[in-house]
Amino acid sequence: MDWVRAAFSPASVAVIGASDNPEKIGGRPIKYMRANGFAGQLWPVNPQRDEVQGLRCYPDVAALPAAPELAVIAVPGEAAVQAVEACARRGTKLGVVISSGFAETGDEGRAAQQRMVDIARAHGMRLVGPNTQGTVNFATGTIASFATLIGEVPPQIGPVAIVSQSGAMSVVPYAFLRAEGIGVRHAHATGNECDLTVADFAWAVAGDPEVRLILLYIESVPDPDALARAAARARERGVPVLALKAGVSARGQAAASSHTGAVATEDKVLDAFLRQNGIVRVPDMRSLVRAARLWLQPARPAGARVAAISNSGACCVMAADAAERHGLVMRPFEAPVQQALADVLPDFAAYANPVDLTAALLSNSGLFGQVLPVLAQADAADSYFISLPMSGKGYDVPRFGQDAREFAARTGRPVVIASPLASTRAAFEGTGLPCFAHDEDAMAALGELVRGHQAAQEANRLARLDGAASRVATLPRASGFLSEHDSLALMKEAGIRTVPHRLCATAQDLHAALREVPGPWAMKICSAQIPHKTEYGLVRLGVANEAQARDAFETLMARCREQGLPADGVLIASMCKGPREVVLGARWDDRFGAVVMAGDGGKYVEAMPDVATVVWPFDAAHLRDRLQELRMAPLWQGVRGEAPLPLHALAQAGQALGAWLHAQQGRVASVDLNPLVSTPDGQWVALDALVELAPGA
Amino acid sequence: MDWVRAAFSPASVAVIGASDNPEKIGGRPIKYMRANGFAGQLWPVNPQRDEVQGLRCYPDVAALPAAPELAVIAVPGEAAVQAVEACARRGTKLGVVISSGFAETGDEGRAAQQRMVDIARAHGMRLVGPNTQGTVNFATGTIASFATLIGEVPPQIGPVAIVSQSGAMSVVPYAFLRAEGIGVRHAHATGNECDLTVADFAWAVAGDPEVRLILLYIESVPDPDALARAAARARERGVPVLALKAGVSARGQAAASSHTGAVATEDKVLDAFLRQNGIVRVPDMRSLVRAARLWLQPARPAGARVAAISNSGACCVMAADAAERHGLVMRPFEAPVQQALADVLPDFAAYANPVDLTAALLSNSGLFGQVLPVLAQADAADSYFISLPMSGKGYDVPRFGQDAREFAARTGRPVVIASPLASTRAAFEGTGLPCFAHDEDAMAALGELVRGHQAAQEANRLARLDGAASRVATLPRASGFLSEHDSLALMKEAGIRTVPHRLCATAQDLHAALREVPGPWAMKICSAQIPHKTEYGLVRLGVANEAQARDAFETLMARCREQGLPADGVLIASMCKGPREVVLGARWDDRFGAVVMAGDGGKYVEAMPDVATVVWPFDAAHLRDRLQELRMAPLWQGVRGEAPLPLHALAQAGQALGAWLHAQQGRVASVDLNPLVSTPDGQWVALDALVELAPGA
Repeated sequence: MDWVRAAFSPASVAVIGASDNPEKIGGRPIKYMRANGFAGQLWPVNPQRDEVQGLRCYPDVAALPAAPELAVIAVPGEAAVQAVEACARRGTKLGVVISSGFAETGDEGRAAQQRMVDIARAHGMRLVGPNTQGTVNFATGTIASFATLIGEVPPQIGPVAIVSQSGAMSVVPYAFLRAEGIGVRHAHATGNECDLTVADFAWAVAGDPEVRLILLYIESVPDPDALARAAARARERGVPVLALKAGVSARGQAAASSHTGAVATEDKVLDAFLRQNGIVRVPDMRSLVRAARLWLQPARPAGARVAAISNSGACCVMAADAAERHGLVMRPFEAPVQQALADVLPDFAAYANPVDLTAALLSNSGLFGQVLPVLAQADAADSYFISLPMSGKGYDVPRFGQDAREFAARTGRPVVIASPLASTRAAFEGTGLPCFAHDEDAMAALGELVRGHQAAQEANRLARLDGAASRVATLPRASGFLSEHDSLALMKEAGIRTVPHRLCATAQDLHAALREVPGPWAMKICSAQIPHKTEYGLVRLGVANEAQARDAFETLMARCREQGLPADGVLIASMCKGPREVVLGARWDDRFGAVVMAGDGGKYVEAMPDVATVVWPFDAAHLRDRLQELRMAPLWQGVRGEAPLPLHALAQAGQALGAWLHAQQGRVASVDLNPLVSTPDGQWVALDALVELAPGA
Repeated sequence: MDWVRAAFSPASVAVIGASDNPEKIGGRPIKYMRANGFAGQLWPVNPQRDEVQGLRCYPDVAALPAAPELAVIAVPGEAAVQAVEACARRGTKLGVVISSGFAETGDEGRAAQQRMVDIARAHGMRLVGPNTQGTVNFATGTIASFATLIGEVPPQIGPVAIVSQSGAMSVVPYAFLRAEGIGVRHAHATGNECDLTVADFAWAVAGDPEVRLILLYIESVPDPDALARAAARARERGVPVLALKAGVSARGQAAASSHTGAVATEDKVLDAFLRQNGIVRVPDMRSLVRAARLWLQPARPAGARVAAISNSGACCVMAADAAERHGLVMRPFEAPVQQALADVLPDFAAYANPVDLTAALLSNSGLFGQVLPVLAQADAADSYFISLPMSGKGYDVPRFGQDAREFAARTGRPVVIASPLASTRAAFEGTGLPCFAHDEDAMAALGELVRGHQAAQEANRLARLDGAASRVATLPRASGFLSEHDSLALMKEAGIRTVPHRLCATAQDLHAALREVPGPWAMKICSAQIPHKTEYGLVRLGVANEAQARDAFETLMARCREQGLPADGVLIASMCKGPREVVLGARWDDRFGAVVMAGDGGKYVEAMPDVATVVWPFDAAHLRDRLQELRMAPLWQGVRGEAPLPLHALAQAGQALGAWLHAQQGRVASVDLNPLVSTPDGQWVALDALVELAPGA
């Protein structure tokens, strides 16, 4: 696309509001581009100067020798809008509007920002910002940015691309990576995102063949489809995408009328979306950069099994703790592997996994090189963790490095090394292997690699799903809740098994209903106007015979009349019990589409949530895996002799609900099924249903 | 104590097995002591040399000019035992047995180790090791250690003391702290702990007036009382103790016959013990050293409220996330504080908390110094988090540092600073304030300080409790389970309310029992031989009248007879229901004494544990606070209009059970009360009880 070339490798750049002072906002982009080998035309624009930082300066855009492909706009307020217009008219492809004072300041600024966008759109010009630190491609020296950190930390061109809404967060990872000697290629900040977004730049850098790792900082995801496309493009090339999404704590806490709304919060939905698209979500800046060195290695683990090797018994013990913390599996090796290790190691060494080389390594530097080939055996582990807290003088560290390098190359499996000593790390890093000061960081990186690689594979699988699998029900275009009777009917249509029930409009209907529906019965007022019946005392449980049913009918209807609540009648339903109540819910999200949640049910769904949240498209296999991560997961296997709860059937019901809600395209706002109970034949039956309609997209 | 002086500041040190090669195990202690200003007598012992590293060498211990106060023993096997004997006979106070090949190698080594201890004890000599890297007091140059890291990382005497079972872990924190410019005073490794333990050395360093932070690495706690005394000594001087306990993952997973045994695992007990003694437990080595800089500051937070200040909006958003993650509270400031901030800050800045200084800081370096005094107002916050990702050229960083320094001094409250730029950190560190590269680490450190300081205060409170508050029941000295009837009787004596019940030995007893116990009834076989009745089908629920009761009696007794199980009769108990079942349990731990656990009850206590574990002594207030940390905590407040569960009553029941179990001093192995249900008058009633006796201490 034109804007990508303009951002990454423009033939010409104009800086509008250019300053002769290289430390000013309008001066830094010029200074940076000249210092970092920008090879195109660089045109300062400033009506008050003939020369800026030694370059010829032009009074305005019209005076430029040609249309600048990229324009950096550093003039304030209305002048910025005019600059965008001048550039747009001349044919500029991309404007990077550094100036602030737009949408972030209030209504007036928002209006000015909109005018700027309208003008640019009319001429096919794209915009970054306003209120952005700017865009950077170090590879071509295209530094349309005033970030001070670029002046503080010398660039080195490498395989990492950073894309961030925040200006600071576009360069902070740069500072950390550079401090570790890792090169950065791109650092783009999108600011107010009046036009181009983080997703657009993520897509663009995913197309740069030199990029091998993409780091994102996002505060919101206005267009999930665009981000999904960017992630897919990265996955195609095997490029990992890590995302730091800030603003977890305060989000989605607004009162919601449905369980699903309260529990499947915006943050949970985003979590599911990122994961299902193979984007690795990290909680903080440190985690965003921590595993970069490992992600940049070509090796990917086939599974979660890790083998640990150390010359400290304490590190072995802690490695087992850390592996568990980070979702890795540290199993004892098979007997032949243990035997082979026993042949090599001293008597009192441990060789089941972790492998304790003991202080014997000090007197026999060859031990390391003898142990590794044994661990390379086909089925010993998927990845390797090496911790060498005791090293330095007396140890042949360069030899260890060579041995580890050869081992990694031969097995093609991930290897991480940890040592508190900088000299030891340097020896290993010289071989290209990823080294960490802290064991904990090394193991965390390995855990992230396993998790992220699995998520990427799952994302590829999900991308091949046929996402439109349900026929569209003919729903009224309406808002508000449906009655339980209508809600249950829709759920049946959606493929969910529902409790046997009949709606009795009059007491005369009771006799037939009680013969059709197996007792004992629950009786509930049926009304679209009363979504939460229990609170009004409009439910009667344990009805055992027709006399009781008649009494309940009259009482419930009378109570409704007294409270002035309209009712369609009374719903008669079988009382069903199961070993555990689960919840299944769905809601339509204007940005993410159909969201489904499933998990532990009952009245504490909100107070003590234990549910999995997924976004469409997904299938039962995916939801099943997510349900197996829940706190209640032991129940899927059966606890203390109990029968296992039918996990796959719940996942299938979730898929059916998701497909149905997706097909409604926003005409159904939310569905709560709480509880469902399992039947002896391994299915789930919804005992209650509440569907809320919406006007639709 | 003599051994402490000998370890920390001996007048004379002998190195037995001295080597002329300063890189050998017998050579390093000599090299290190000479290089680090050891001022006492240093006597190499080696029969094959007249001189070692330029010092006069002695052929044996007998030839030494006097008894060495401290002897470093670096000769192998039987020679080490003989060396200990020679030293002990001459009057040596402390032997540091570096040699390995003892208990860690098997039975033979264990026997040799025991002989060594016996000899030393007979002469009042104490021992460190064997199989240890040795002990180090840098302040006096007493380096009875062969740790290679000491040669790699130049010492600097400071306020930190490290005590570790593992040799490697006695110096790895040293390497990390030194890399951050923090000085270390002590680094002691205790190895096999044949005599002196981590607790002994922790107690010793807590008595060193120059020590201001103690870091422990432990793999087991053989003598909790000793560790408690060490912690108390540290708390008296306001010295924080942090502990890394490794071996979390594999512990306590052995099959246990009681709920309490299965859930209150060794690791949970240790967790409670450390916390109740004000020792901050950390999960990994990185966390052990991370907050050292902050702990070394004198300021302690009065509460958990944190104010965050940054010149990056993104850092403000992430600070809120991080505060929540680390148990801190980031509330909006009171109106007057907000108003005062509004007077100082630009219009579009955020000033509710976090405070976003915006890019305006670049043009107005005074902003920082203007904002801080406002935040110093009495009730704004208990601690302060300052993040400056944008800094360097253009910012007056030294002035920020001075402003922050003055602010911290004036308020006496903890302040942490984070910046990715080393130059910015250096400017702040120059003022003595604790600086972090990562915001996440700064906030984590602050969270740890709050948590640790609160735990220390609580530990002081618990230390003043009268821990022996229950009268001793006259229990038989026996092993095995008691019947439910006997168990319930004991619980009543312990002060726990129990369900109304009667034991019916014959069917003739039923009539009276049913009149005394309110129905409907649960009927259960009562037998000390059948602790888990349900599994044998020996329970009948919902018995409604005498006829049903007679039928149940005959059936249950017959079933018992058929299965050849002895029974005392049938227990008749009221069927009680409550809004939620809770569990209360206790067990005797040979090392930690009475352990109590309480929390969510029912049949999934082991599969989905949500319980608090505490060790005696504790009181109801302490247990109540711990119960409020549980997942089920919302139920203590009442959820969706339900009545709150009686939290304090459960805590009181827990205290009563703890006091009772403590009084039994091991004659009761375990107690399971599961479930208890709450009554309308706000008490808890145990519906089932299972007491297991043990021979006692």
